[in-house]
Amino acid sequence: MNREADRTGLRVIRAGIDTYQQPVVYMHRDCEVCRSEGFAALTRVSMRIDHRELIATLNVVVSDLLPADAVALSEAAWSAIQPEPDAIATFYHPEPPRSAGALRAKVFGQRLEEADYLALMQDTVHNRLSDIELAAFVTACAGERLDHGETTALTRAMVAVGDTLDWGEGPVLDKHCVGGLPGNRTTPIIVAIVASLGYRIPKTSSRAITSPAGTADTMEVMAPVELDLDAMRYVVEREGGCVVWGGNVRLSPADDVLIRVERPLDFDSDGQLVASILSKKVAAGSNHVLIDMPVGPTAKVRSAAAADSLTGRLAGTAAALGLRVAVNRSDGRQPVGYGIGPALEAADVLSVLRGDPDAPADLRERSIALAGDLLDLVPGNVIGRGRGLAEQSLASGQALAKFMAICDAQGGFTEPKFARHRADVLAPRNGTVMAIDNRRLSKVAKLAGAPVSPAAGLVSRWRIGDRISAGEPMFTVHAQSKGQLEYALDYTQACPTIFDLREDPT
Amino acid sequence: MNREADRTGLRVIRAGIDTYQQPVVYMHRDCEVCRSEGFAALTRVSMRIDHRELIATLNVVVSDLLPADAVALSEAAWSAIQPEPDAIATFYHPEPPRSAGALRAKVFGQRLEEADYLALMQDTVHNRLSDIELAAFVTACAGERLDHGETTALTRAMVAVGDTLDWGEGPVLDKHCVGGLPGNRTTPIIVAIVASLGYRIPKTSSRAITSPAGTADTMEVMAPVELDLDAMRYVVEREGGCVVWGGNVRLSPADDVLIRVERPLDFDSDGQLVASILSKKVAAGSNHVLIDMPVGPTAKVRSAAAADSLTGRLAGTAAALGLRVAVNRSDGRQPVGYGIGPALEAADVLSVLRGDPDAPADLRERSIALAGDLLDLVPGNVIGRGRGLAEQSLASGQALAKFMAICDAQGGFTEPKFARHRADVLAPRNGTVMAIDNRRLSKVAKLAGAPVSPAAGLVSRWRIGDRISAGEPMFTVHAQSKGQLEYALDYTQACPTIFDLREDPT
Repeated sequence: MNREADRTGLRVIRAGIDTYQQPVVYMHRDCEVCRSEGFAALTRVSMRIDHRELIATLNVVVSDLLPADAVALSEAAWSAIQPEPDAIATFYHPEPPRSAGALRAKVFGQRLEEADYLALMQDTVHNRLSDIELAAFVTACAGERLDHGETTALTRAMVAVGDTLDWGEGPVLDKHCVGGLPGNRTTPIIVAIVASLGYRIPKTSSRAITSPAGTADTMEVMAPVELDLDAMRYVVEREGGCVVWGGNVRLSPADDVLIRVERPLDFDSDGQLVASILSKKVAAGSNHVLIDMPVGPTAKVRSAAAADSLTGRLAGTAAALGLRVAVNRSDGRQPVGYGIGPALEAADVLSVLRGDPDAPADLRERSIALAGDLLDLVPGNVIGRGRGLAEQSLASGQALAKFMAICDAQGGFTEPKFARHRADVLAPRNGTVMAIDNRRLSKVAKLAGAPVSPAAGLVSRWRIGDRISAGEPMFTVHAQSKGQLEYALDYTQACPTIFDLREDPT
Repeated sequence: MNREADRTGLRVIRAGIDTYQQPVVYMHRDCEVCRSEGFAALTRVSMRIDHRELIATLNVVVSDLLPADAVALSEAAWSAIQPEPDAIATFYHPEPPRSAGALRAKVFGQRLEEADYLALMQDTVHNRLSDIELAAFVTACAGERLDHGETTALTRAMVAVGDTLDWGEGPVLDKHCVGGLPGNRTTPIIVAIVASLGYRIPKTSSRAITSPAGTADTMEVMAPVELDLDAMRYVVEREGGCVVWGGNVRLSPADDVLIRVERPLDFDSDGQLVASILSKKVAAGSNHVLIDMPVGPTAKVRSAAAADSLTGRLAGTAAALGLRVAVNRSDGRQPVGYGIGPALEAADVLSVLRGDPDAPADLRERSIALAGDLLDLVPGNVIGRGRGLAEQSLASGQALAKFMAICDAQGGFTEPKFARHRADVLAPRNGTVMAIDNRRLSKVAKLAGAPVSPAAGLVSRWRIGDRISAGEPMFTVHAQSKGQLEYALDYTQACPTIFDLREDPT
């Protein structure tokens, strides 16, 4: 279509409205463009400024907030197209996304080919799919609806639409935890250990999807994590390792878009999970990957059968992509460390690295075991010697020194800060802890404000098998606002069984 | 939670922004409520004014558009909660929708019970599910993912969350066309015939989901259709029949909410389709229903197998709900009538009712056949006599008189008005019409502006088997704006095979 000359242009102004990641443009009901194009509220429009294009959702202004000759851009639209001062935008009906047919086919249960997934991921990263379409895609891939071949094809497509890193010859290590276990923040410790031993471990982490903290959220309490690709490369070349947020380096950027709709839906599916994990690893140039898979009734992986299924899918897809992968299946019945929430977990990480005698023993043990398994995965290493090397790195202070050097290279270390409002939740009676409900415990931390408020969350030192006396604190809630503290406490009152206490025989 | 006294209230103002049906509220980033509750962009918030509650999506204003002590409401939020002047609103984190567990279970392929569907439909009509959650629900029910029992349970739930009509003893007739055949606008004619013969036929119709015109869109060109329940009852008691929009009478209002997300996704699924059709019939108090099911490669039902599957599902669910249903399977290979688009289809309806010698013969024949089948469905009527009665009603002018009386009772008859811009699309060569692509033909009408512009659409008199000469118009596009006319024409150039012309042997 080449009718530029006939087109009415609109002056571009900034609306100053935050609509999260979905770009929205605002036009007046009486504006020439709305009338001539037949645009109405929620129409998807193609906006062009010079030769840049952005697909956005239209909201229609019916008051005099906006003149009829201007278009106002939401913050997401503004930063996506970055208009010059006095920019003029023209508007079009967007072409239907090329992947519309593939999306429809998947919704109706058909198997898709790699070209279909590539089209879907291209449209995903170029914002050509609405949140409603993305929600349909995520739902259509849930459960058993992605087979092994499709999972591999989706992973390849996610890698292809982003940047990739190449570290040259030799092993490049990585680890990933299949989430769901509150406080299981081994990554910064493992990266410090592995890098201190001379290996490369360019770790990208995600923010929380449905949990109170992701590794990127926790690391961000201690050092900047929003590094770009060049900055990440600098850190890894200088220190051997890094812990940065994956979203900013455009390694598998489609993953971050999909997370936007997965987060409110509060579900991850196996196929999406495997594609999400492995696409980041392939794009980051890793070739030796250890997967930490906690299994427990309230962890993300709830049973041995679910773990077998996910391990099979991970192994199959990793093999197809040329990755060496090992899975460490661990006890996922209860939290790890004391804190749940970004800053409180960061404090645990630092106390392990610093060799604090009061450091959480379970977090230390898990970090050593996982680092050991990862070292054992490297060809030429003697199987079983990794664990000893890891212990030595921690005990000698090498790992701490390396962690501080990495933080320094990422922009500088900061001690975690803690929340203003705290309240203890007391045990209603004497008893022995028989079980801990990780999901509800995470929910308390989320209601308290984590991860949006980094200092929010909760602290508990109790583990299964411990005896608690009536009136002792079961856990302490931390929050930045009184309202959030109250929400979290209200919820604990409604759910008194987060700690399953069995009364002692009298 | 009873902390009303501690809550910060915000002054309610009207944003003057049309966000279609999804309520949006705007707060300033620095407002006390955002800070104390930890609200961010896209947070779902519960807004309370006096004792009314509305769940809405938050957009955060980061400029000085809005003071920090006010909340601005989008048009949908404003009309849903209808604040008094100087109203003060308080805000809460909404309880998770009660149906969240059921939604998650369905996404992961589990079968749901009637109580689950009831919870889902209650949350749907009370706006407690976001568009992303609704999209996940619609997707999770697509294809074969709803069984017969679930379809019945969903239908019952859709009926239960809306109003219902009771017409007392005796037969109450109804018809429904499984869409997808452009121009197949028999409903107003059938209602006129059936009502003129003394039967009750309280017809509620939908607006277009993915087509260029729904029956409600077409009827609205000739008479008001947005009647409330009392007005509808008045029309039916006075005239025996009506043709009103179903959305305003709150018969199965959940259906209209689901359509909001189905429309941009551009798919209907069998289970949802059956629930959508039958919930409206049960709620309207109908007990004898004829289903018009056009079958053809580019109709909604594409094959005999698909028709069998849908018929089985309709029959099974209808039987469970105590409805007498017959299915009339018809030729769905090509459009019916001349016009496609609300006003152009209304013109065809009127010419059949008026006995115009140039009236489209196929529309007249279908209307007679369907009205005849519907009359035959009534116990006590002699099977096979319905057709003759229908013909007589049309030929005598009784049906026309009844139609005008119905329009009058609904608020007054208006002659259809036609569009300002028209252009012929010419045959590229001589040939015989072998096939017509209904979907692409509908798309031309939609690009021309239908159904948002009622006068937009296209007119074609050609049918399969007709001979066209090079340069003769294949169809004429009607549009209200030049831009839309051009879009429609551009599309016809990109898709020259809408009419499959086989060249004559020379």
